Amino acid sequence: MTITTVDAAIERSRETAASIEQEPGRHRMLTGDRPTGDLHIGHYLSSLRNRVALQERGVESFVLIADYQVITDRDSVGQIKDNTLSLLADYLAAGLDPARSTIFAHSAVPQLNQLMLPFLSLVTQAELQRNPTVKDELVASRRPLSGLLLTYPVHQAADILFCKADVVPVGKDQLPHVEQTRVVARRFNARYAAGAEVFPEPTALINDHQLILGVDGQKMSKSRGNVIRLAATEDETAKLIRKARTDSEPTMTYEPERRPEVANLLTIASGFMGVAPETLADDLGSGGGSALKALVIEAINEGLRAHRERRQGIAKDRAELLQILRAGNAKAEAVADHTLTEVRQAMSMDY
Amino acid sequence: MTITTVDAAIERSRETAASIEQEPGRHRMLTGDRPTGDLHIGHYLSSLRNRVALQERGVESFVLIADYQVITDRDSVGQIKDNTLSLLADYLAAGLDPARSTIFAHSAVPQLNQLMLPFLSLVTQAELQRNPTVKDELVASRRPLSGLLLTYPVHQAADILFCKADVVPVGKDQLPHVEQTRVVARRFNARYAAGAEVFPEPTALINDHQLILGVDGQKMSKSRGNVIRLAATEDETAKLIRKARTDSEPTMTYEPERRPEVANLLTIASGFMGVAPETLADDLGSGGGSALKALVIEAINEGLRAHRERRQGIAKDRAELLQILRAGNAKAEAVADHTLTEVRQAMSMDY
Repeated sequence: MTITTVDAAIERSRETAASIEQEPGRHRMLTGDRPTGDLHIGHYLSSLRNRVALQERGVESFVLIADYQVITDRDSVGQIKDNTLSLLADYLAAGLDPARSTIFAHSAVPQLNQLMLPFLSLVTQAELQRNPTVKDELVASRRPLSGLLLTYPVHQAADILFCKADVVPVGKDQLPHVEQTRVVARRFNARYAAGAEVFPEPTALINDHQLILGVDGQKMSKSRGNVIRLAATEDETAKLIRKARTDSEPTMTYEPERRPEVANLLTIASGFMGVAPETLADDLGSGGGSALKALVIEAINEGLRAHRERRQGIAKDRAELLQILRAGNAKAEAVADHTLTEVRQAMSMDY
Repeated sequence: MTITTVDAAIERSRETAASIEQEPGRHRMLTGDRPTGDLHIGHYLSSLRNRVALQERGVESFVLIADYQVITDRDSVGQIKDNTLSLLADYLAAGLDPARSTIFAHSAVPQLNQLMLPFLSLVTQAELQRNPTVKDELVASRRPLSGLLLTYPVHQAADILFCKADVVPVGKDQLPHVEQTRVVARRFNARYAAGAEVFPEPTALINDHQLILGVDGQKMSKSRGNVIRLAATEDETAKLIRKARTDSEPTMTYEPERRPEVANLLTIASGFMGVAPETLADDLGSGGGSALKALVIEAINEGLRAHRERRQGIAKDRAELLQILRAGNAKAEAVADHTLTEVRQAMSMDY
């Protein structure tokens, strides 16, 4: 993306945020996660909590459990059903309400997936290959590029456009996906609908949260064991935070560049406490790493207590979770069926 | 494809042809056409007639109207609805019986199209790019490769595997597609079904008919005006054949290499009359091009008389055609839904 495109996207994000404040009911949001494992505090602080807030403000929400994305870069689906239900349990515990937020699985909505075919006709191989996320994932996964990973930007366009979402909360790194979706919408309307607006161009709602790192100061990753899961117990949480990396300076300061590990812990505490990390640092004074860790343990366990209690109750009832998911799938299918009908009409394929 | 792979495919084709003779009811066939315009005598002689024969022998058939394939290499769907109904009219006039052959449109079966996603995870970008038909179409269309054309081998795998067809009648040039479908079936079973046979590996039933050329001796193409449509009148047919290219030798011989235009006309007459082209040439003796053309006009118009009469009656009733197509779509959807359910179970995505 050029700097101009990024600037324009940031400007649109600001306008959309303002419009959500004014008229939340006019907006529809699409978000989602891959069911590759339990959600952690990074997900909670940087996206899940925000989704719930938008729902509470009155934005209609679609939440996608992106199960087919699990196999873009690995051979096995893993414990996909358990992971999916675990994700759903965290959604519900965090406050997503199935009556207002349609939570559904990607693989359960054929009419959404069919959109892949007309949309694939609207992008070139060169555009697919240029997508930075496709490039990054290719490097990270160290295996030949699968057709599913290559076409990932087009699945994402289908995910967003099937429900005509106009708001997609993303990190800045995901802007190119939303941009690609805008291109698909624009080309579909121009090429197959004689300019009629079958698909609105969605807006990225840019999330500028500080990235939460693992307890070792590295990117959170299940295999590194540096992740604090939402489902973790208070003891597990305390144990992980106690072995977190800090540094040898006893006086606390919030300096993300110079003291990334300390800054990360302050950011976590700040996220749960709603107090600026600089203020927390000042309050801690020269208490050193152990005082900081005690504060962070308290912040997380306090901040997640209600979530964890609800989660425990919810996660026990697998039948109930399945029923909620099925209801969400059915709602998404009805929406997707409606959109596919419009697509067929626009393309004169309504036989 | 290596020579060994081609030889193996030819051998399998022979075995399958023999098995169809013995036990036609054990086989299921998938065929289809792009709805880009009216069918012509090339389609009739080299594939349509053969499909009807296989149906009559008792092979269960699925016949795909590949509407999404129209936009692999062009920007517009064209007169897609008219073309689709015209195709259907020719199918019915030729003797395809909706009670025994499920005729359906690609865009009407979301559960089939969803198979694209798991299947795309089973092939690499390199494999997609190696496909010779993708390469050829890219050269022919002189435009950037679309994502839909690039993933064409995977659509075709979904088309064949959704109904678990074990027989796919193709020309030799299409062998790589069937081979790619076999790879997809094999990998799906191994990777996602722990070796269980969710998908059988289909066999190409190789069609070694002489390719029918246009009346100018070039490849048939609507834009060249060298095509004899099944829907043409007897007069239109006569007019086109009369301006067909021949050569200046009055004595008729069947020599495809040395006298391609004369050989092509003899092949057409042979196809409709069931007499070897060499015999027809001997019978014509030194009558020259005009005697040959008179024979060809007679052969086509005689051979297609019943087809054209039936076609006229059928094509008039658009509502009836739509109803037949919808019934076929519904049958295909039920089959695709069953297969998708199996796929979801195999992949533990049966929520």
